[in-house]
Amino acid sequence: MGVWFLSLLFFFLCSKVRSELIPSLPGQHGHLSFRQYSGYIVTDAEHGRALFYYFVECSSNEDVLHPLTLWLNGGPGCSSLGFGAFMENGPFQPGENGTLIKNPYSWNIESHMLYLESPIGVGFSYSNTSKDYIDWNDTQTAEDNYRFILKWLEEFPQFKDCDFFLAGESYAGHYIPQLAALLVEHNKNPNVEPVNLKAIALGNPLLDLDISVLAGDYLWSHGAISDETLFLEKTVCNDSKYMREYVHSQWSQGCNDVFNRVADEVSLDVGFDDLLLPVCTSSSNVEQFKVRSIYSAVGKREKKGDPCLTGRIFTYLNKPEVQKALHANTTHLPFHWDFCLGPLVYQEENIDMNLIPLVSNLIKKGIPVLLYSGDQDAKIPLTQTRIIANNIAKELNLSPFSNYGTWYDQKQVGGWTQSFGGADANGKNVTNLTFATVRGAAHEVPFTSPSQALTLFHSFVNGIPLPRPSS
Amino acid sequence: MGVWFLSLLFFFLCSKVRSELIPSLPGQHGHLSFRQYSGYIVTDAEHGRALFYYFVECSSNEDVLHPLTLWLNGGPGCSSLGFGAFMENGPFQPGENGTLIKNPYSWNIESHMLYLESPIGVGFSYSNTSKDYIDWNDTQTAEDNYRFILKWLEEFPQFKDCDFFLAGESYAGHYIPQLAALLVEHNKNPNVEPVNLKAIALGNPLLDLDISVLAGDYLWSHGAISDETLFLEKTVCNDSKYMREYVHSQWSQGCNDVFNRVADEVSLDVGFDDLLLPVCTSSSNVEQFKVRSIYSAVGKREKKGDPCLTGRIFTYLNKPEVQKALHANTTHLPFHWDFCLGPLVYQEENIDMNLIPLVSNLIKKGIPVLLYSGDQDAKIPLTQTRIIANNIAKELNLSPFSNYGTWYDQKQVGGWTQSFGGADANGKNVTNLTFATVRGAAHEVPFTSPSQALTLFHSFVNGIPLPRPSS
Repeated sequence: MGVWFLSLLFFFLCSKVRSELIPSLPGQHGHLSFRQYSGYIVTDAEHGRALFYYFVECSSNEDVLHPLTLWLNGGPGCSSLGFGAFMENGPFQPGENGTLIKNPYSWNIESHMLYLESPIGVGFSYSNTSKDYIDWNDTQTAEDNYRFILKWLEEFPQFKDCDFFLAGESYAGHYIPQLAALLVEHNKNPNVEPVNLKAIALGNPLLDLDISVLAGDYLWSHGAISDETLFLEKTVCNDSKYMREYVHSQWSQGCNDVFNRVADEVSLDVGFDDLLLPVCTSSSNVEQFKVRSIYSAVGKREKKGDPCLTGRIFTYLNKPEVQKALHANTTHLPFHWDFCLGPLVYQEENIDMNLIPLVSNLIKKGIPVLLYSGDQDAKIPLTQTRIIANNIAKELNLSPFSNYGTWYDQKQVGGWTQSFGGADANGKNVTNLTFATVRGAAHEVPFTSPSQALTLFHSFVNGIPLPRPSS
Repeated sequence: MGVWFLSLLFFFLCSKVRSELIPSLPGQHGHLSFRQYSGYIVTDAEHGRALFYYFVECSSNEDVLHPLTLWLNGGPGCSSLGFGAFMENGPFQPGENGTLIKNPYSWNIESHMLYLESPIGVGFSYSNTSKDYIDWNDTQTAEDNYRFILKWLEEFPQFKDCDFFLAGESYAGHYIPQLAALLVEHNKNPNVEPVNLKAIALGNPLLDLDISVLAGDYLWSHGAISDETLFLEKTVCNDSKYMREYVHSQWSQGCNDVFNRVADEVSLDVGFDDLLLPVCTSSSNVEQFKVRSIYSAVGKREKKGDPCLTGRIFTYLNKPEVQKALHANTTHLPFHWDFCLGPLVYQEENIDMNLIPLVSNLIKKGIPVLLYSGDQDAKIPLTQTRIIANNIAKELNLSPFSNYGTWYDQKQVGGWTQSFGGADANGKNVTNLTFATVRGAAHEVPFTSPSQALTLFHSFVNGIPLPRPSS
């Protein structure tokens, strides 16, 4: 009976997997050295909640157990499919005329990549219970994501033994530590199969409203605001106070005046995501509108990171044949796929939550943390994430392993970095916390700096230091 | 006799001009819509001092009197031929295999451009009196440059009526105001032909050691130094103190320690000229050496501004056939042409001179000033030049004409700007002072941001505001 049962289980699993296999995506050309899957995982059958994922196997042919990485974008309420997979570190980016362009710096060179549209209301993920869309919060996101992982690993049991990593950016600074904490708790339970969580990576993350979003000095030192406006930020209303007023709906005239002034000086034609990226000047109004609303940026300057890409992604993911190939939108959602701003009403007070104690706690529990920062981002400036890294190191009594200094990618400086840690029980040095900037990179680091981002990711999943001058 | 004399003079002038005409430069292809001249002007016959110039006529065919701009690079002791003409805003840049590439953003689209190798000891300029090379100073530079202009205009009398502009960068923040002051004095003399000096432009200029070079906050906010090092800069030794110790040869261990630390953190592979530009990874050791020593910079990132260009310029300007075509090195200098660091020993104490009062004085005397800043430069950060602009505006009681905000180049944000001025005797608004950043630009603005730089220059020589959102 045991053999019969296992055979049936194997058949069930394989047929399930087969149904979610993507033979080919519209616009995709040539033979691939990896398989792609996508579909839904039901996280709450009663409510009809289903989270959409896009999974890309590692493209490396090495006969080893590759790591598995779950990628999450932020928002709250932004799509990991649109940003992470098709704009940042996935295997393809939509080109002109519906083609897909291979991304030579895709993170699936290093790891199996699992992109999750989370929470419900984001992209193709949904709930059949209307009230789920009202007042959703971080705790629910973490719990749904946790259920997703366990069920996904049940459906793809061949990846259960992989080293498991969580990576993401921006508001994923909330999602990932909370999810990681649930997984750490899960693993304490002797009656469950543990999830091999090895480390987490947070790019330009929102961690603490008091620190993360303070951008006055950053904008001033990058030329984007004047002396007078910086003075107003320091005396009348800073970014933390402004955002706190915003999320708690307690408006003050002083804050509004300062932030209208900041917005005027920085200009709508410069994206806070990246002070250097040009705006898309495509003649397509649809593209132009999408790009400006989601990812506004400016400046005549050659740079990796095509500012018109978001427009093409929007078009691509809304094509019926693409949705069909992705096994997406099977319930025919009453709205189109979008980068952010779906039907979900998130509890905005959650933005005002300090995640630093949770990150510290994860480190204490043996989960190494990488905090990285695209240095052109004014939303969550590198200066602020660095302050948080230093504070955590101090609080946990972690020692810097070497001086703050440059790291390298392809014979060029990729950015600056510092790692912190200490000796483990066996006296061996263990890195608990790494801070790294990515030179010239946007809020979405792999978008503008794909090669540097892949080098960073290589170090992260291999648990090795970033290449330094002496290495 | 009058007619005879004039004919003879005309013949003399024309033959002189003809002899300095460049029929073609090695590597140059195609028909040009402008003429080029180069050669020497003797500024002191007794000492045998001769300054080398390269002059490019305006390429515009419009039948108007084009402006004439004298361009000066800094150092002290760096070449306007190598930097200004062949790397930044001249009509050509050396390509591979000895070719010359047309620069579509050459400033001679707007103005006749006169590049001067100044002072003696720089590039092809020389003195036959050895002691001239010892302890040369700003005053001597200004006087020699002044003599140069008067004599050059005598040799090229057809440009005497042009509106005359001075532009340059870095240590030209010393050269240009001092030269402008001599020209303003000159014009007071009723017995001389006045020089039509209209305005001066100073890019990333050294103006005051107490302000201009303070880079701690800038480097910190760009990720290049750590919290601890910024703290040391604020408490132990800042850049002004360090440079003052350096130029007065009064070394302190504290300053040396801090600056070794800054240098280690920023790294030799990142140029202070531009925190984002990659280093040249050409296999040619000669090029590599030249690039690293003169213009070190780093970071895998697409950007205008070819980091290997300096190597090609060095090779090009040292070719005998190029020197012959340029009428250069006619006295066979005992050293090769170089970007900087010739045989000249400059009085380094001059670096510690505050030029702000002189700039203010020029404004008071009716000479408008443009202070512009490539925003990736850590040598003279934009933040510091902006402080100086604001201080001057305050001291002279100049009003800002509009809010600090973006300016545009080709539908993209070129940078941020603010202009200051007041009403003239007739009640008409006059711009006396303009501050402008150039987004993504190096210390050498036209090198990395040629299109933006040309737009900036267009506004400058036409005395019109930079394109703003509303324009």
